[in-house]
Amino acid sequence: MFADKPIDQFLAQLASAAPTPGGGSVAALAGALAAGLESMVCHLTLGKEKYQAVQDDINQLLAETEKRRLKLMSLIEEDVEAYGHLAAAYKMARATDVEKQVRTQAIQEAVRGATLAPLGIAEVCAELIDLCPPLVEKGNTNAVSDVGVAVLLAEAALRSALLNVMINLPSIKDVEFANATRQRMTELTQGKAELKERVMKDVEAKL
Amino acid sequence: MFADKPIDQFLAQLASAAPTPGGGSVAALAGALAAGLESMVCHLTLGKEKYQAVQDDINQLLAETEKRRLKLMSLIEEDVEAYGHLAAAYKMARATDVEKQVRTQAIQEAVRGATLAPLGIAEVCAELIDLCPPLVEKGNTNAVSDVGVAVLLAEAALRSALLNVMINLPSIKDVEFANATRQRMTELTQGKAELKERVMKDVEAKL
Repeated sequence: MFADKPIDQFLAQLASAAPTPGGGSVAALAGALAAGLESMVCHLTLGKEKYQAVQDDINQLLAETEKRRLKLMSLIEEDVEAYGHLAAAYKMARATDVEKQVRTQAIQEAVRGATLAPLGIAEVCAELIDLCPPLVEKGNTNAVSDVGVAVLLAEAALRSALLNVMINLPSIKDVEFANATRQRMTELTQGKAELKERVMKDVEAKL
Repeated sequence: MFADKPIDQFLAQLASAAPTPGGGSVAALAGALAAGLESMVCHLTLGKEKYQAVQDDINQLLAETEKRRLKLMSLIEEDVEAYGHLAAAYKMARATDVEKQVRTQAIQEAVRGATLAPLGIAEVCAELIDLCPPLVEKGNTNAVSDVGVAVLLAEAALRSALLNVMINLPSIKDVEFANATRQRMTELTQGKAELKERVMKDVEAKL
């Protein structure tokens, strides 16, 4: 488990030559930080008289941001596991033709998992970007810079996760799966950079 | 100390209404993650015969990335402390004219500190972006996507830290200090978004 590791130990292990954690887990953690900031902005808005009119909206937003924060924390581990399966598959015996065939199949299975894990991270990060405009609009203005940090990190995490999808695509032999993945990547990034800059503009206008 | 807190606890406290950690500390942590990935790429290049010609360069780069990883970890705490001083100054007595004067001065001192802390984070993150091109060029190609994640996070952390500088600027009465800070912000961001996209292009070409 990485989620219960102290931050300094996580960072030290990250910096080392140890195979995990790597870029995929870091993408998930960066996304979780974005989600945490979004939840914080909700908490700083709830119970405040000035924001009485939006309490229901903020409560709904909080449920969405917290769900994604917890999801991303579990995706940190999922990415590590997927990497472990792939590394194990590559180490399988390949002396005989049968062994070679079994190993190839295991690699294909594992590389699929190692593609789907970061794709799952990207999905959640894309949703975290979409949650920012209502937070800028309705959330506590004193915490508006935190929405800015959230949108910056969520977008960086989205692109980071997709890099970890892209490294696996050349190894995938299932053309249909590879094409569907590419298609999903395009959908996930569509308009997100622009939305991030729009949120940043709105944030800066409220500073 | 936040650096020795388990990740899940840090995230839970971040998501809560507790005043710290906030966006500034998260910017420092995101920067530390970028630095950690850069160090990892160095470690995965050192001792590899294929990269024999660049061992000295990589050793030098590693010294630079590790210095910044440790610096950013201490900046997580520094940002929290600076925020604490500012909150304490705002809570000072202001019944008499003398008290008011003392409080105003304390606030001005504290807001300066709360500006310099994220500015320091931004400085280091800008340097982390500059360290990426030689890492893409000379580092282990198998880890090139990790340089991509590093540059994305370092740039997001840079902009995040600067948001936390910007929220304090309107409170600063020392015009010279405010102008110098604005000038430094411009210098720090100059060309960084373009450099990030150039690194990303080079990374994607090597995937």
